[in-house]
Amino acid sequence: MTKKFQVVGIGNAMVDVLAHCDDAFLAGHGIEKGIMQLIDLDRAAKLYAEVGLATEMSGGSAANTIAGIAHLGGRTAYVGKVKDDQLGAIFAHDLRAQGAVYDTPLAPKDADGETGRCIVLVTPDGERSMNTYLGVTEHLAPSDIDESQMADAAWIFLEGYRFDGPESHEAFAKAISACKGTGGRVSITLSDPFCIDRHRDAFAKMLREDVDLLFANRAEMLSMYQVDGLGAAMAKAAAEVDIVVATDSEHGVHIAQGDNRWHVPAVPTKVVDATGAGDLFAGAFLWGLAEGYDLEVCGHMGNIAASEVISHLGARVEADLKALFAQHSIGL
Amino acid sequence: MTKKFQVVGIGNAMVDVLAHCDDAFLAGHGIEKGIMQLIDLDRAAKLYAEVGLATEMSGGSAANTIAGIAHLGGRTAYVGKVKDDQLGAIFAHDLRAQGAVYDTPLAPKDADGETGRCIVLVTPDGERSMNTYLGVTEHLAPSDIDESQMADAAWIFLEGYRFDGPESHEAFAKAISACKGTGGRVSITLSDPFCIDRHRDAFAKMLREDVDLLFANRAEMLSMYQVDGLGAAMAKAAAEVDIVVATDSEHGVHIAQGDNRWHVPAVPTKVVDATGAGDLFAGAFLWGLAEGYDLEVCGHMGNIAASEVISHLGARVEADLKALFAQHSIGL
Repeated sequence: MTKKFQVVGIGNAMVDVLAHCDDAFLAGHGIEKGIMQLIDLDRAAKLYAEVGLATEMSGGSAANTIAGIAHLGGRTAYVGKVKDDQLGAIFAHDLRAQGAVYDTPLAPKDADGETGRCIVLVTPDGERSMNTYLGVTEHLAPSDIDESQMADAAWIFLEGYRFDGPESHEAFAKAISACKGTGGRVSITLSDPFCIDRHRDAFAKMLREDVDLLFANRAEMLSMYQVDGLGAAMAKAAAEVDIVVATDSEHGVHIAQGDNRWHVPAVPTKVVDATGAGDLFAGAFLWGLAEGYDLEVCGHMGNIAASEVISHLGARVEADLKALFAQHSIGL
Repeated sequence: MTKKFQVVGIGNAMVDVLAHCDDAFLAGHGIEKGIMQLIDLDRAAKLYAEVGLATEMSGGSAANTIAGIAHLGGRTAYVGKVKDDQLGAIFAHDLRAQGAVYDTPLAPKDADGETGRCIVLVTPDGERSMNTYLGVTEHLAPSDIDESQMADAAWIFLEGYRFDGPESHEAFAKAISACKGTGGRVSITLSDPFCIDRHRDAFAKMLREDVDLLFANRAEMLSMYQVDGLGAAMAKAAAEVDIVVATDSEHGVHIAQGDNRWHVPAVPTKVVDATGAGDLFAGAFLWGLAEGYDLEVCGHMGNIAASEVISHLGARVEADLKALFAQHSIGL
């Protein structure tokens, strides 16, 4: 039976506020380079007042992934909470504009907080330091999960960052149960090592019991499995998760399924803004999987998509990914 | 006496919503290519729902000009109306982030309309078709003009588009009077040929009586002076305006002062998005003038700034303009 959706994503709905800065600015503002840090509305306002010229583009890790799948023509939906405000309208537009279904109930105009945003500071080396004001997206709750949508998903894709909200654990559980109940499968991205530190037990339980496909980068794999080498972490992960996909930036991606291992080299490119690399990797990989490609081909697709998104500012894909696949001799 | 401000701009405060489309999309939506067309909020919502992935960046013709001057280290202020909403906050941030003074009273949260926006549709040839919802910026009124600020300006810079608001004619008159009263000078950009058609008499009167520096492109010059050739239009303009600056896209810029004429060739570049070319030309030109450079050098600076802004998406300058000037052997 073909399900209505190939992938339904759940995550933090965010508008990215992208600005360039130098390392001194990061140091002067106590911003740790290259990671995501949570900030409140006051800090967001203060930081925003001090950054230079900015550009607003829809973001959100899982939303970037879903937008990438939709760009490829995949059948997708996304769940993540925005407010009935202008930034919320921008977020909703950009998902729907690429063909994803998006119908999470809006937080009303008089709700506390605003639509979440992430002040992404891009340094000259292309590294990004993310300062996230969660706003209303923090309050994603079980009532926001439409069980029939989850039941109609071949895959659900969960964003690790969303573990930073107490009601979202329940929301995830509801989604997983509905999806698995009709033979759907569960994928997750660990999002970042600090997020893992905050929610190690919850991640471990979900990986053991529910997850069929794990996306993580090297640092996240090491943090999650508390081992020194990526190989050891892959082995531990592959013992409990069907497919393990560990991205390793310019060293490409390592894939494990049972005792099988694949390595797919990265696609070299000039890094303008690393935002969205992991998200778009996951998007193209999931699309390939949903379309029935081999894991190694899926890894190659993911690497191509990641290289596209880091070659320009912003975390949504701009070039025609299918055309890029063809240039890399991937027949579709 | 050194005035506090080198240039104070008055114009339509706008956030640009940039999206790519093809010519068929323009035709299918009855959008005339390459010009600015005014739309209401309903049409803006409908059009926005149908365009693809978009990026939000502060825009507004005179605001782009002022941001460019501020980027160069010039002392500037800007007057243009936004609302107390998220897009208004984005607009205000981006001007202040580059060092311009911006303190126009906000339209309150309960005012009719929203912060103005311009849906800029960029076709593969880099041409842009602008669909402008004016929103609250339409209601710029004399009460928004701070006479002491205008009196403290060596130059004011008026955006022709703002003639599309009845109260703004009065606002312009108030600003001109305050500025001229202390020996300041008046510059204006004609904005577009259709805007000239809508307000020909008002433009003609202002050019005759008040304007010291006119910026216009070829089409605007021909429309304004109702002659066939640019040379003839320049002659008519130079008879009533001290400095006449006519940009002619890839053919560079023609400058007239009295009987003197200069031509400065364009700086070739690959056009990604033509948005802001004229605005940044005017910004760099005005900055040069305020800093005491010859008109020909100002023209060269303008051409360099225009070539920078059309080489990327968005109408605000990104590269270091002074560094670019140095690369073109303009000593600062």
